Amino acid sequence: MPGKILVVDDVATNRIVMKVRLAEACYQVLQADGGLAALDLARRERPDLILLDFMMADLDGIEVCRRLKADPDTAEIPVIMVTAARNSEEKLRALQAGAEEFLPKPLDELTLLARVRSLLRARETARELALRDGTRRVLGFDEPAEDFARKGRIALIAARQAQALHWKGALSRHLNAELTVMTRDGALALSDGGPVPDLFVISADLERSGAGLRLLTDLRSRAATRHSAVLMVVPEGAREAAAMALDLGANDLVNSPFDGPEMALRLATQLSRKYQSDRLRASVKDGLRLAVTDPLTGLFNRRYALPHLARIVSRAGETRRPCAVMLLDMDRFKQVNDRHGHAAGDAVLEQVARLLSAELRAVDLVARIGGEEFLIALPETSLEIATATAERLRLQIGETPVLLPGGKGVISVSVSIGLTLCDRPGCAVDVLMEEADAALYAAKADGRNKVTIRNSAA
Amino acid sequence: MPGKILVVDDVATNRIVMKVRLAEACYQVLQADGGLAALDLARRERPDLILLDFMMADLDGIEVCRRLKADPDTAEIPVIMVTAARNSEEKLRALQAGAEEFLPKPLDELTLLARVRSLLRARETARELALRDGTRRVLGFDEPAEDFARKGRIALIAARQAQALHWKGALSRHLNAELTVMTRDGALALSDGGPVPDLFVISADLERSGAGLRLLTDLRSRAATRHSAVLMVVPEGAREAAAMALDLGANDLVNSPFDGPEMALRLATQLSRKYQSDRLRASVKDGLRLAVTDPLTGLFNRRYALPHLARIVSRAGETRRPCAVMLLDMDRFKQVNDRHGHAAGDAVLEQVARLLSAELRAVDLVARIGGEEFLIALPETSLEIATATAERLRLQIGETPVLLPGGKGVISVSVSIGLTLCDRPGCAVDVLMEEADAALYAAKADGRNKVTIRNSAA
Repeated sequence: MPGKILVVDDVATNRIVMKVRLAEACYQVLQADGGLAALDLARRERPDLILLDFMMADLDGIEVCRRLKADPDTAEIPVIMVTAARNSEEKLRALQAGAEEFLPKPLDELTLLARVRSLLRARETARELALRDGTRRVLGFDEPAEDFARKGRIALIAARQAQALHWKGALSRHLNAELTVMTRDGALALSDGGPVPDLFVISADLERSGAGLRLLTDLRSRAATRHSAVLMVVPEGAREAAAMALDLGANDLVNSPFDGPEMALRLATQLSRKYQSDRLRASVKDGLRLAVTDPLTGLFNRRYALPHLARIVSRAGETRRPCAVMLLDMDRFKQVNDRHGHAAGDAVLEQVARLLSAELRAVDLVARIGGEEFLIALPETSLEIATATAERLRLQIGETPVLLPGGKGVISVSVSIGLTLCDRPGCAVDVLMEEADAALYAAKADGRNKVTIRNSAA
Repeated sequence: MPGKILVVDDVATNRIVMKVRLAEACYQVLQADGGLAALDLARRERPDLILLDFMMADLDGIEVCRRLKADPDTAEIPVIMVTAARNSEEKLRALQAGAEEFLPKPLDELTLLARVRSLLRARETARELALRDGTRRVLGFDEPAEDFARKGRIALIAARQAQALHWKGALSRHLNAELTVMTRDGALALSDGGPVPDLFVISADLERSGAGLRLLTDLRSRAATRHSAVLMVVPEGAREAAAMALDLGANDLVNSPFDGPEMALRLATQLSRKYQSDRLRASVKDGLRLAVTDPLTGLFNRRYALPHLARIVSRAGETRRPCAVMLLDMDRFKQVNDRHGHAAGDAVLEQVARLLSAELRAVDLVARIGGEEFLIALPETSLEIATATAERLRLQIGETPVLLPGGKGVISVSVSIGLTLCDRPGCAVDVLMEEADAALYAAKADGRNKVTIRNSAA
């Protein structure tokens, strides 16, 4: 749908003026004539953004904003507060109530629309990152934010060092963050590996007018700084530059000279958003890793193992270097579970997984593909070396007693291993798996705790 | 690290001029004095971008570009080709060889740097989406691009309809795509649900100068169109507008009037990139879903189920409405596997999963938490209804014969169910699970194919 904007004002004329402007920019406009109606509409219609008047008869804008932000159903909707008054105290109250922005009446169209675009864009990005279904919770997306405790790193970049030092002084009284004065060149030389500021405060005018905007686009194009938040400091009245800064991806902006407490509040908000999106990005990566690992042992799971085996086998065909495939199965595993409980069985599997990982090379594939069954593939490995490796694994596992959980003593376990070799082009994965399985079956039939090699490979 | 750019030119002066300019913009510059040296440096140093001269003594730029793009190690590095000649044939050859852009000598700094930023930004975005480890493969990221066959949807937005129709005529001869003439308002009214163009071609000057840039930022801020590619058509010589378009997120741009074959080639490139990033985004979602589902039945897995159960239980405490927890276990499942094979066992589990999903509500939790064990949680459910539901499930499963795979007849199966209720604040999940497990054990002991309710809940 096109952007849906809720306009809240108890004066009908104001609403209509706003509606015309927004409709011209192709937004769908909803209207509420008071605070209570706004709360109701926001919950029912879930607009993409709310323009909220400060003074209303039934419920003032600050209170409406506070309630919107307290309700999980509406908390994520960006709010721009609008007022005829121009004192910094009201501004601060709006930001403290959770409003994303504060604009004076009469509204300047250029500024308003740039802000709207910027807030909508930020909202869509956040929405996309935070999956809407339950998946996000299980993957830890909803974990409490531990790093709120961490001290934010803020870089201050102004035209003159004296200016940046002045900013630092003004902010350090209101904000518990690591404030560093930096130059443009210093910011652009930042490296991916080292510590990178969470947030840059940049003056729109550096060595020349508008150079700050250029720096913004430069930071956005570099790997190290593309996810850092940027707050632009724009001269009062520089409407074009302000609108452009937002369109170029600045996360927030203030007019210079700025008010210390207001700036500190804005910086704190941007920092906490930055932490949140860092966490979300990390969780997406973790989630993807979870999709291919076995939760108990941390080894790859069957879903990962079979396609990966296919690639190892096809590479063996291309390079004409043999690869070995093993199936390894715990002996009498059911007895372990029955006698000592499931926790003991789990301890056995975990220890065997650790041994396998430790004994094999990084290029080898180790996966848990069934309850007590492991798949191992060794690229570029001859039959002799594969056989010796299998023997070593079997002995190692047999000789390492497993400590039962809860101090219930130790037990010994053993494994049977079926081994086959892919030593000709055109090996089929399913044939190799069948061969390894047949060899494993032979090892079991032969009394267990054995390595058996598929006949034709021997 | 800061952006690393490889400058390839066999004239030392040219390289030095370029180096000075790029170093001023804080890029790290590498130099190669010929084609072979460039290929070697590109492979060893993996620069973030290559500026490649057309004419060189040992190997011409086109051939260097072709080889860079054919080598998987260097194929992803963006290439800007640079030449003194200004004929459209050379331009076309450069694009056909895989170059991302073609710029005339002498290089205009504004244009060059905007292009560099844009290409670096695109590259970082692609890098981030395409995980570097093996995970991407198993999640299907490397699957062949099936939708290359699909006809791209391209919207043409010009100041006057006649102009857009002219574009359409010029392009339709060279491009197999669905070309639609559109207005600005039409583009902004596009809805998330409906068909959205893969690519917008937008004139920089719509109803007034620069309005096309505004439309670009508008499209980027709307949910429906934020991932569509945008190619701006900029009047020849409008250097500022061109640089701004790239900084505002245009994927590519051409000067008007444009050359049909060149434009078609650029559009085809942008389309195929768009498909690729669509696929990557879809794969990330799929991957996250895989992390929480059981591959056989498609139900949630244990990893998902336990935290989700905890949330259901805690909500029950808050709302003071009871929730029911069931453990459901297949009876004599080992016999099914032993007698009819694993495929038959799998068919049983799949059918039971289907029945459970069909019989339960969307708010209920159904998960496969063990080999033949399912966890079910029913929020806001009384003991009476939960008991009736469990009975219904038991009967339904018992009365629905399972078709064995391979036409090997049908078998009947049954389940035992242990049921407990969380009907007081402060229920602990592990206690509920133990209660349900004890009830399940009692059902098994009582002859199976039964629903048993934990004593204190009855």
